[in-house]
Amino acid sequence: MRYAVGIDLGGTRIKGALVDGRGNLVTAAKTATAAAQGVEVVIERIRRLIAELLLSVPKGGTVVGVGLAVPGVIDMPSGTVLFLPNLPGGWSDVPLARLVGDHFGLPTHLLNDARAATLGEKRYGSGRNSRNMVCLTLGTGIGGGIIINDELYFGSEGTAGEVGHQTVELHGPPCNCGNEGCAEALASGPALAALAVKAVMQGATTKIRDLAEGDLNRITPKLVSQAAALGDPVALGIIRKVGGYIGTAIANLVAVLNPDMVVVGGGVAQAGPALFQAIEETVASRVHVAKGGRGNVVIVPAGLGEDAGVAGAAAWALERAGDSRS
Amino acid sequence: MRYAVGIDLGGTRIKGALVDGRGNLVTAAKTATAAAQGVEVVIERIRRLIAELLLSVPKGGTVVGVGLAVPGVIDMPSGTVLFLPNLPGGWSDVPLARLVGDHFGLPTHLLNDARAATLGEKRYGSGRNSRNMVCLTLGTGIGGGIIINDELYFGSEGTAGEVGHQTVELHGPPCNCGNEGCAEALASGPALAALAVKAVMQGATTKIRDLAEGDLNRITPKLVSQAAALGDPVALGIIRKVGGYIGTAIANLVAVLNPDMVVVGGGVAQAGPALFQAIEETVASRVHVAKGGRGNVVIVPAGLGEDAGVAGAAAWALERAGDSRS
Repeated sequence: MRYAVGIDLGGTRIKGALVDGRGNLVTAAKTATAAAQGVEVVIERIRRLIAELLLSVPKGGTVVGVGLAVPGVIDMPSGTVLFLPNLPGGWSDVPLARLVGDHFGLPTHLLNDARAATLGEKRYGSGRNSRNMVCLTLGTGIGGGIIINDELYFGSEGTAGEVGHQTVELHGPPCNCGNEGCAEALASGPALAALAVKAVMQGATTKIRDLAEGDLNRITPKLVSQAAALGDPVALGIIRKVGGYIGTAIANLVAVLNPDMVVVGGGVAQAGPALFQAIEETVASRVHVAKGGRGNVVIVPAGLGEDAGVAGAAAWALERAGDSRS
Repeated sequence: MRYAVGIDLGGTRIKGALVDGRGNLVTAAKTATAAAQGVEVVIERIRRLIAELLLSVPKGGTVVGVGLAVPGVIDMPSGTVLFLPNLPGGWSDVPLARLVGDHFGLPTHLLNDARAATLGEKRYGSGRNSRNMVCLTLGTGIGGGIIINDELYFGSEGTAGEVGHQTVELHGPPCNCGNEGCAEALASGPALAALAVKAVMQGATTKIRDLAEGDLNRITPKLVSQAAALGDPVALGIIRKVGGYIGTAIANLVAVLNPDMVVVGGGVAQAGPALFQAIEETVASRVHVAKGGRGNVVIVPAGLGEDAGVAGAAAWALERAGDSRS
């Protein structure tokens, strides 16, 4: 059996797994990123995690490479990190693939973390039966990826899939990216929490206040989801509103790409049925370009949860090594 | 030499050409659509146009098929017209490919007219050196098409490329498609003309009024462009505004698809440098996801003018016949 190591570098944690050709996570491990201690320390932690995972390769197994999912802009051909918006400085022009790969003598391939999650969902998760798929990861930001004819689509410079940076409101709120009115600015986790904070500050009667015990700092997307699960109308209204923004971004993707499946993952996707219902209603009301309006596209929750990134990173290393896709 | 007939069915005219494998229009012809006289008459006119074009096949030449560009929703595998929004009734479930192809004993293939124009620009026009390309046709509506890895991308049901039906303003004006805030609702030819009519009605001092000789019905996108070419500030302002809407739609496509080229054609694209300047400025200000923000994408005017549709339709027939691409 052939294996690959998948690594998912995040702002607070580095996750890793040894993955077999069928997408099974043979061993999984994680460590704190310690991003504040600088680039060298983070790279050393990635190396240690890989070394640990390599110890668990079953007898007779072959490791074909390492896939490394990175939260930012990279140059794929050279395996260089160009810009990581959520990690403290020093990450511009870091030849990360070489710095990690040379250490183990293993082919090491970088890819964007949202693209890794997309590939994970396509190969091993909710997207297995799709052919043309779009994936959105709803979290601190809104990332994504595109599958075309069963393959990850990178575009001309490797940045395709930035679905969260579609403008859906011409003069909407400023986005971290520098644009205004991006889906991310309206519907990310922080944007959702901000709507809840605003409601509480304006004196709304809501379980959000009770669950947060009056402390605005404790209002998170998860807490809003909890309030919604209790039937709280304010929380449900916020989730529906955010679902409308996300649904608009998805509607645009359906009009432009006519996918057969849209996979929605990330922490905010845990908000439950109210979110998905709002997404469905929005797509149905906005898309009128195919048979029956929106066509046959199905919108489904992601299936791999937090493992999508490591699974996809490993799948990428397996594919780069020429392994046939499962 | 191998040839194909390309037909571009429009609301007022049917255009046709005999095209060789290099994209040369050997013979071109056109006729009035006579759409009001019904489906039978239109089909008979298409047949007569094809018959006329076939007379001009050079000695020893082979015609491999007919490509038929249609302004609406089709089922590609069966060659059936499902819905033509701009032609009077009777066009639902018309097996047009069979009705035309059987008459001549030639393989006949339907495709959407904006996708045909996209393929024409890719094979023979401005897009020849692109690999991943998006095309927008700015006219009565805003159509488009997508080239991925040098091939027309149709999506899962053949409707991919509806770039004009991206929502760019959440609660924008109603669109003919049934959505609101579509790029088409804000920046089509009629939307541009409506901005000019409004300016004149509000009493603005503008050459638009003079050129229209005070007759609001004479205000067209072309007339606004003429006023802009004379340096009229109101006309220039309108074109810049529309360019901002179109630029926003293009910015979304750049973020999502990371193309190397965007080709902009159609009548409204004739508005000149002010339009393209506004598009460039908008894309630069809105896209921040690649190297240097917007990446290396170039935005260029279409190269084939009104011939893009027939050229692309013929290219499609040649490709379906297995001819290698030029």
